[in-house]
Amino acid sequence: MSVIYQKVALIGLGLIASSMAHAMRAGGLAGEIVGHAKSAETRATALEIGLCDRVYATAAEAVQGADLVVLAVPVGAMAAIAEEIAPHLAPGCTVTDVGSVKQAVIAAVQPHIPAGVEFIPGHPMAGTEYSGPRSGFATLYKGRWWLLTPFETTAPAAMVRLRALLEAMGAKVDTMDAAHHDQVLAVVSHTPHLIAYTMVGLAAHMEQVSNSEVIQYSASGFRDFTRIAASDPTMWRDVFLTNKEAVLEILGRFTEELFVLQRAIRMGDGDHLHEYFTRTRAIRRGIIEAGQDTSAPDFGRGPVAEKL
Amino acid sequence: MSVIYQKVALIGLGLIASSMAHAMRAGGLAGEIVGHAKSAETRATALEIGLCDRVYATAAEAVQGADLVVLAVPVGAMAAIAEEIAPHLAPGCTVTDVGSVKQAVIAAVQPHIPAGVEFIPGHPMAGTEYSGPRSGFATLYKGRWWLLTPFETTAPAAMVRLRALLEAMGAKVDTMDAAHHDQVLAVVSHTPHLIAYTMVGLAAHMEQVSNSEVIQYSASGFRDFTRIAASDPTMWRDVFLTNKEAVLEILGRFTEELFVLQRAIRMGDGDHLHEYFTRTRAIRRGIIEAGQDTSAPDFGRGPVAEKL
Repeated sequence: MSVIYQKVALIGLGLIASSMAHAMRAGGLAGEIVGHAKSAETRATALEIGLCDRVYATAAEAVQGADLVVLAVPVGAMAAIAEEIAPHLAPGCTVTDVGSVKQAVIAAVQPHIPAGVEFIPGHPMAGTEYSGPRSGFATLYKGRWWLLTPFETTAPAAMVRLRALLEAMGAKVDTMDAAHHDQVLAVVSHTPHLIAYTMVGLAAHMEQVSNSEVIQYSASGFRDFTRIAASDPTMWRDVFLTNKEAVLEILGRFTEELFVLQRAIRMGDGDHLHEYFTRTRAIRRGIIEAGQDTSAPDFGRGPVAEKL
Repeated sequence: MSVIYQKVALIGLGLIASSMAHAMRAGGLAGEIVGHAKSAETRATALEIGLCDRVYATAAEAVQGADLVVLAVPVGAMAAIAEEIAPHLAPGCTVTDVGSVKQAVIAAVQPHIPAGVEFIPGHPMAGTEYSGPRSGFATLYKGRWWLLTPFETTAPAAMVRLRALLEAMGAKVDTMDAAHHDQVLAVVSHTPHLIAYTMVGLAAHMEQVSNSEVIQYSASGFRDFTRIAASDPTMWRDVFLTNKEAVLEILGRFTEELFVLQRAIRMGDGDHLHEYFTRTRAIRRGIIEAGQDTSAPDFGRGPVAEKL
C-alpha cells in the first residue's frame, strides 16, 4: 500500500479515530498520524498504544501542516473545534468529519473553513457499543458504508484522494445529499436507537418485574435493545439534538403505527397482526440479500454491537 | 447418557420440537420419538431427516403410549390439540408445552388434562428467526433458560424427570408462577418484539426514504430490529393475543416514557437525554455480567437471532 496523506491529524481520539489510526497504520496509508484529545489521559493512552506519533493539547497545534484533518468529536463540539483550527489549516488541506448527522455539522463547520481548504463531510456507518482510545481496531470499517456528503463546489481531486483512503481502510464509499442523509439515518439508526433506549430505561423501573429478573431473563428483543442502548451517551445526545426535525417526524409516525398495532391487540384482530408480521419478514430478506447481515442463526450468542 | 422417557410424542414439528428431537437423539434421552404435524409435507420431512421414528396424521394417534407429550404448536392451537389428545393420554404420562405465554396455555390445556396425567407448562427461552422442521439443531437449548410454571399439585417426581430431560439437553431450568412469567416476558421479549415489528413496518412505507435505501444502509438499530421482526408471524400473533393485558400495560408505559424523551428532544434538553442514556448503560453491564450475552464487540456481523 502507499501513503495517501503525508500527515493526518485526528481531532478526538475515541472509537472512530482510533480505528482509523489502526487501519491507516496497517495499510501504510499515512506518513504521520498526530492527534488531539481534550483529556490528558486520552492523549497519554494514544501515545502509549501507538495510535499517534505525536499528540497535542490543542486542536490548533495538531492540525498544523496536516493534509488531512479528521474531526472525530461529538457533533455538539464541532463548531468550537472548527473555529479553533481554521486559522491553522494548511492550504490545500482536506477537512472531513465523522459525525452521525450531516446538516448540523455542515452548519457548524463550513462557515469556518478558509479558502483553499476542502471540507468534505463524512459518516462512517460502523461502530461498537464501546468508546475511548482503546476501543479501536484496524478492521472496524471493513465492508462498512462510509457516506460522504460533498458540496457542488468540492474539488474532484480532493474527493478522489479521500475516497482512496476510506476504501484502502476497507470501507464502501457512497455519496449523498446531506439533508437526505439525515432523513435516511433517522429511519435506519437514530429513531431505532431512541426506541431501544426507551425500552431499556422503562425496564429499569418496573415494579412487578425486578431488575435482576430483567437481567437474568433478558432475551432477544430486550438483550439486543440493551446492546444498542449501551452506546456513547454524549454522541447520542448530540445526534438527537442536531437531527431533531427528522427524528421527531419519524417518532410521530412510529407512535401512530404502534397505536394501530396496539389497538389490533386490544381488539383481538389477529389477521391484522399476522399480515403485518408477514410483511416485515420481506425487509429482513432484503437486508440479507444486500449483504448487510448474514443469514446464519446464532441464537443470540454473537453480540451485535454497533453505533453510527 | 440414559433414556429418560421411553416414548416422546412431539405435537408440532417446527424449530422448537425439531431441536428437541435432535438434542434427545444426541443425548440418547428418549427410547422413541414420534410426532404429529398438521402438514403432510412437514411429516414427510420429519421422517426423511430422522426427527421422528414415526409420524401420525393426528395428534390423538401420536400421543398413544407416550410417557412425555410436548405441545409445540402456536399458543392459539393449544386448546383444540389438548381436547383432541386428552382421551388418548396414557396414565402416568407428563404433558408439557413450549408456549411463550403461560396463563393462556394453562387456561387452554389444563381443563382437558385427565386425572393421572401431569401437565407441566414450560417455555424454552431459545430460538432463531427461522422456523419449520429443518430449522432445528441439537444445541439450541445449550445454556438457555427453560422456564417451568408448575402447579402446587404437580407431582415432584414428574418435575424431577422433566427437569432431568431439559438439563440433559443443555438447558438451565427455573420455575416461576405463570402470571409472573407472563409479566416478565412482556418486558424482556413481547413488547420489544412489537416495537421492532412496528419500526420495520414503518420503514417499509416511507416516502422520503426508499425501501432500497433502508435495506442498503440498514445498520445497527434497524438491522437488529429486522432480525427480531423476522420471527414466525403466527407464533407472535398468538403471543400478543394471549398475553394481551401484560403487553398493553407495558406498551402504555413505553409510550409514556417515549413521549418524555421526545419532548426532551423537542425542547433541546440535552442533560435529560445524557442522563437517561447513561443509566441504560448500567443494565447492559448487568446482562453481560449475568452471562446472558458476551462483551465482545463484533460490529453487527454476527447475527443475533432468537425468538421466545
